[in-house]
Order: sequence, then structure tokens, then C-alpha cells
Amino acid sequence: MSSQPIRVGLIGLNKSDCWAVNAHLPYLKDTSRYRIVALLNSSEDAARAAISSHGLSSDTRAYGSPEKFAEDNDIELVVCSVRVDRHYPILKPILEKTTAKAVHCEWPLGKNLAEAEELTKLAKSKGMKTILGLQGRKAPTGILVKELIQQGKIGKPLSITITAIGYNFGAADFEALSYLSDISIGGNMVTIHFSHILDTVTQAVGELSSYSVVLDTMRDKTMLRNKPFTYVQKSESDEPVKIVGEVPRTSHDQIAIQGHLENGAVFSFHMRGGHPYPNTAGLDWRVYGETGEIRVTAPSANLHFGGPGHSVQVHNHETNSVEEVNIPQDSWDEKKLPFTARAPARVYEAFADGKEHEYATWDDAVQRHRLVEELYDRSKNGSTEKKAEYTSRL
Amino acid sequence: MSSQPIRVGLIGLNKSDCWAVNAHLPYLKDTSRYRIVALLNSSEDAARAAISSHGLSSDTRAYGSPEKFAEDNDIELVVCSVRVDRHYPILKPILEKTTAKAVHCEWPLGKNLAEAEELTKLAKSKGMKTILGLQGRKAPTGILVKELIQQGKIGKPLSITITAIGYNFGAADFEALSYLSDISIGGNMVTIHFSHILDTVTQAVGELSSYSVVLDTMRDKTMLRNKPFTYVQKSESDEPVKIVGEVPRTSHDQIAIQGHLENGAVFSFHMRGGHPYPNTAGLDWRVYGETGEIRVTAPSANLHFGGPGHSVQVHNHETNSVEEVNIPQDSWDEKKLPFTARAPARVYEAFADGKEHEYATWDDAVQRHRLVEELYDRSKNGSTEKKAEYTSRL
Repeated sequence: MSSQPIRVGLIGLNKSDCWAVNAHLPYLKDTSRYRIVALLNSSEDAARAAISSHGLSSDTRAYGSPEKFAEDNDIELVVCSVRVDRHYPILKPILEKTTAKAVHCEWPLGKNLAEAEELTKLAKSKGMKTILGLQGRKAPTGILVKELIQQGKIGKPLSITITAIGYNFGAADFEALSYLSDISIGGNMVTIHFSHILDTVTQAVGELSSYSVVLDTMRDKTMLRNKPFTYVQKSESDEPVKIVGEVPRTSHDQIAIQGHLENGAVFSFHMRGGHPYPNTAGLDWRVYGETGEIRVTAPSANLHFGGPGHSVQVHNHETNSVEEVNIPQDSWDEKKLPFTARAPARVYEAFADGKEHEYATWDDAVQRHRLVEELYDRSKNGSTEKKAEYTSRL
Repeated sequence: MSSQPIRVGLIGLNKSDCWAVNAHLPYLKDTSRYRIVALLNSSEDAARAAISSHGLSSDTRAYGSPEKFAEDNDIELVVCSVRVDRHYPILKPILEKTTAKAVHCEWPLGKNLAEAEELTKLAKSKGMKTILGLQGRKAPTGILVKELIQQGKIGKPLSITITAIGYNFGAADFEALSYLSDISIGGNMVTIHFSHILDTVTQAVGELSSYSVVLDTMRDKTMLRNKPFTYVQKSESDEPVKIVGEVPRTSHDQIAIQGHLENGAVFSFHMRGGHPYPNTAGLDWRVYGETGEIRVTAPSANLHFGGPGHSVQVHNHETNSVEEVNIPQDSWDEKKLPFTARAPARVYEAFADGKEHEYATWDDAVQRHRLVEELYDRSKNGSTEKKAEYTSRL
């Protein structure tokens, strides 16, 4: 690889809190392998405010329109971190014009399969490399589970059991995330929370070969609160959390999927919206094998982040002992990058190293969107779930 | 009711350890409402040995043949507690001849639906009352969950999540229970462990209205050990546990079922054979509701026993507090009957009190056998589980 930093045009860096700030910026500001040369925001002013707020180089170009951004021939890598329904309208004009050699977009890529397919086709027609923000591929927890299985620590896997909570999708959500409840936006518990977990899990245990699925919306509306769940009232002068509205929920807050993996293991996964039961793991993932069992726990659905609070244990059936396995640390842990930025940092490193098989691409986005469509279809037509007859025949 | 004790003819009381000894005898010996007047064992000698071993009245009649037992016109209640595949050949000749007014049999009644239907029809044709040993109907844990829901403690139930282990059906089983691995016997993880849990759970939350199911045998053989899992080597002179053989396993060691209840709640239940992960509940049953969540934990699949080690908690979403709810005690707890005998004691009491809706009958046995057949059918023909196509289309 060139010793020159890869020149990044970053889309969606707010001046304050957002995913680009939490997941992309910490690494990009820290590394000599990449350099942010341009920002695209909702307006040039917003882009300039972000450049100033984050102390980016004063020669960073500020754009307010995708067309102008696309004409910047100095950009080598386009990075898109905006709300999912804006991927397509922003990326399409950029991909049509840009001379950049690569494009990196968060998962879900576009709000549905059609958008993902069109964007992927467009990027391929331009010969661009693609990166997808399914960061779980580079999250140490899933990689460790894969290695433990390959090392024969539990023998042949016989069954997978996962229970998880969404944190969002309960009785109330943060108003800035109210769009999660609108299924037409494309960002929701199925596409984001469930898909990230499934992608992280399946890289370790193998893909689904057959399944049936239940998707349901048990709360058809959600209240909106004016503060995120992380908000803690520090003093009496702090304004307490208020309910500031209510929106209908058309996206799903219940997902149950069961079936088999390609290796034959039984697979069972139930995820519900809402907060975890106190003092229990928000995510509990078991791999029960012939000679032992792996148990992964995490405080929430964020298995693809790599932490904090992840635990990986192995129960050895013969000795009946439980071993806590250390999750490997790397320089991004040592540098104490925010957890949300560590797996993305590893993705950036893998791309810079040309290790294409270590990160997800837009082909994977198309595959994951196909699963999402399959889940929607199967849960709607009910062909996989028959009426129970045993209760009415007496 | 008559103040005279109900005269019981008990089938299957060994001189030492067995289900009749553990679940039926402690109550029957303790109560003034029933009196054991006759035993039917594999031989008259075996029946006499049991009478002597358990200190039953010396005028207790001993029988070695169902036909002779059936001619005992003093028996009012026939109680059958033998291995499931012996229910039909023993009960059929008895039901044809007996003058008893009632019959009590353990679940599963007979080894399949056909046997249960025939026995039920026969009992009805004789005008006999029937009792079924689905003791979970009188186990305090399930009853308490039902009451908590009815009291509105968690609002409308939105989803049910159950994970459970079978204890049996792992890599090795106790040799005396090797028949559990042979599906043709009719006693296995689906008919016994799963069905008892499901019956106990559904009385609290409502019946399934639709579902898909995965049944699998992931270990196609099991080793046999010469001691039960409860055996603990007390001194070096004790013989340690030995593997004394191996049998094929044709019954299932994996059950995954998901769907909806009649009240609309999502239902997800995964049960695997083998021992629990150390320091976790062998059974974890959640009822997630609009305003709170009930969590029931038990050390094993024996939810229908009522203990020991059961815990029922309620998480209140608004206060974020968890309340441990005391499981109501009654005289059978106070008398410290073995746990296995307390729910059966309550069934006997309900029958003596004429409270027909408080215990399961053979109609329920037919219904549960229909479910078991439905599970077998659905899991075999695969109509409820479609091949995943998303992995092969790139």
C-alpha cells in the first residue's frame, strides 16, 4: 500500500453527537493511514461547523450538496454515515460522478434490497471497492467464539440459543430516534439490531440453512422522551426526562427465528424490544456442543461493538469447570478509543491492508437485505406458521 | 363427599425407588381421605414385597395380573404409575372389567394418541371419572404466574421466552432410564419434559394458537452410566460412576417452538438435552408485558413439581424495581412431603373435593397427545421450515 494517507470524503459528521463522530472520527483523527480531506453535510455551513468543532485541518473542503462533493477529484474513499433513508439519494449522484476508488457505507446500505442492489451495481460499474459497516466482522467477541469452536473447545456445535433485548422498541424511545418506529425508513430492530447480531453470530457458527420466523409489533405506538436512555439527572436543577409525544410503531418489536445452521446445529433466537430485566444480560448467546458450551453475555444488543461488558466463557462438560476466556486486546483497546470506534477502526485497518476477506462489502449488504426481505415475506404470508389444531378438536 | 376413605388400587409401587414411591405413596400413606387396599405389580410376590417394605396394612391385597386386579370389586380408584409403554396393556383389561368409579394415570397416558384415545373412550363407556398426572395444573409456581398476570402486575403479556434443559438426553443417561432414548416407548423429552412444562406454562399464559417447531436428535446415541445423576460418591470405598454401555437415541434432544398464543403474545421456547450451564437456571421463563416482566427460574425442567429452588420475580418497568414474590405454601409444604409428592397430593385433594376443573383429565391427555403428534408431523415434513435462499443467490 501507498505510504500516503488515504484521502477520505466523509458524509454525515455533525458538529456534535452522531454515529460518524462516535464510530468513524476517533480512528480517522488518530491514524496516519487516512486523512479527512472533505466533508459533506446538509449544508456547507454545517460542514464548516463540523470542521471547526472537531478541529479538522483548515484545508478540509466543506460541501452541502452531493453533486459538488462528487466533483472533488482528490477524494479516494467516500465514507457515508447518515440516516439509512438518506443513503440512496446521497450516494447515487456521488457514485455516478466520483473518481474515488472506494466507498464505505454503514449498514443497512439503503433502506431496502432494491436500493442496495442498485447502489452495489453502480459501484461495481465504476470499478470501486466497497466496504460495509457490519462491524461485527471485526469485533473480537465473535472472532473469539469462532476460534474457540475451531480449536475444538466444545466439540461439534449442537445448538445455538440467543435471547436479546433491543433497548429501543419498548414503551418509550428517545425522540431523535423516533424514525426507528417507522418501517418505511428502513432502520429498525430487524435491519439494525437483529441483523448486526446475526451477522456477528453467523460468522462464528455458520449461516442459517433453514428457518421459520415470527416478526410482530406488539406495541403499535411508542412514547417519545426528550432525552436518550443514557441520560442521568445529575442534580435537581437538571431538567428531568419528559414525555414529549407519541408516534405509531409500524416496525417490529418482536423477532423469533428458529431452524438449522449449515453445519446442522439447531438455531433459536428470540429478541424483544425494551430494556433488559435488571441484573441479567441484555444478550445471552449459547453454543452448546458435544463436549462443552460457550456462553457469551453482553449488556445489550451491541454484540458487534465488541464491548464494554462482554464476557466469553467455556463450560467443559468433562471437568464441569467454567473458564472465563479473555477477549483479545489490540492497539485500539490500548488506545482506549470509544468502544463504538474500535471495530470500525479494525475495518479501516483491514481495508488499508488490502485484507478484503476480513471486512464486509456491499455484496454482503445485498445478502443481508435479502434475508431481511425474506423475513418480512415469511412473517407476512404466514406460510411458515400453521394454526394449531390440537386445541379445537376435543 | 363420603367420610370414608376412597379405596385405591395402586399399580406400580416397587418395594424401593420409583415414581409411585416418590410421587403417590407419601400422600396416600399420610391422608385419611384415601386408603391403599390393593397393589398390582409384575408379580404377586413383588406386590407383597412392596406391601411389606412400605409398611402398608397387612390386609392390602397383592396382585400379579391385571385381570385378577380388575376383579377386585372393593377398589374405587385405580391409580396407574408404571412405565408409559405399559399403560395400555395393563389398563385395557382392567378398564374392561373393573367396577371402580375412577382411574388416575400418569402422563403420558399410553405411548401415543391412539392408545390414549382408546383408553379414554373405554373409561368413558364405563362412566368412570379420569385423572391425569399432569401435576403442573396444581403446582403453585404456574398458578402464581397466572394470578400475577390476572392482577395486572405486568399489563398485557407481549411475549413469552423459555429456555430449558432436559438434564437427561445429554451425552450420558442413567441406565435405568435408557428407554427415554427409544422413541417407540413414548416417554421422552417431547412427551414428558417438554409437555409438562408447556402444560404448566399454558395454564398460566394461555394456549398456543399457531406455531412452528424444530425437533432434532443431535446425539444419535447416548452412553449409559450405572448411577443416577443424583449419585454423589461419599467415600473412596464407594464405587465411582461407570459407563456400562451405549444405546442409540431415536428420541429428540432438541426442541424449538415459536409462534403465538391465543391472547396474541409471541411465544419462543428452546429446550435442549443435557445438564445446565453451571450457576444458571435450568429453566428460565419470562413473561414480558406492557408494564412489567415476570421471571420464573427453576433448577431444572421440573416446573410441574413446584420445587425446590423455584423463584418468581416481577420487574416493574415504571419503578425499575424487582419484587421477589413468595410462592404460596400449603399444608403439603408444611408437612414437608417430598417435592415430587406435593403437586400429586393437591391433585388427589382436588379429586376428593370434586373440583374437576382443577386437575387434568384423560381428555387433556388426548389433547396433549394430539399436540405431540402435531409436533412430530410438522418437524418431519418440514412444511413449516423453508430453505433459506439468501445465502445462495449472490
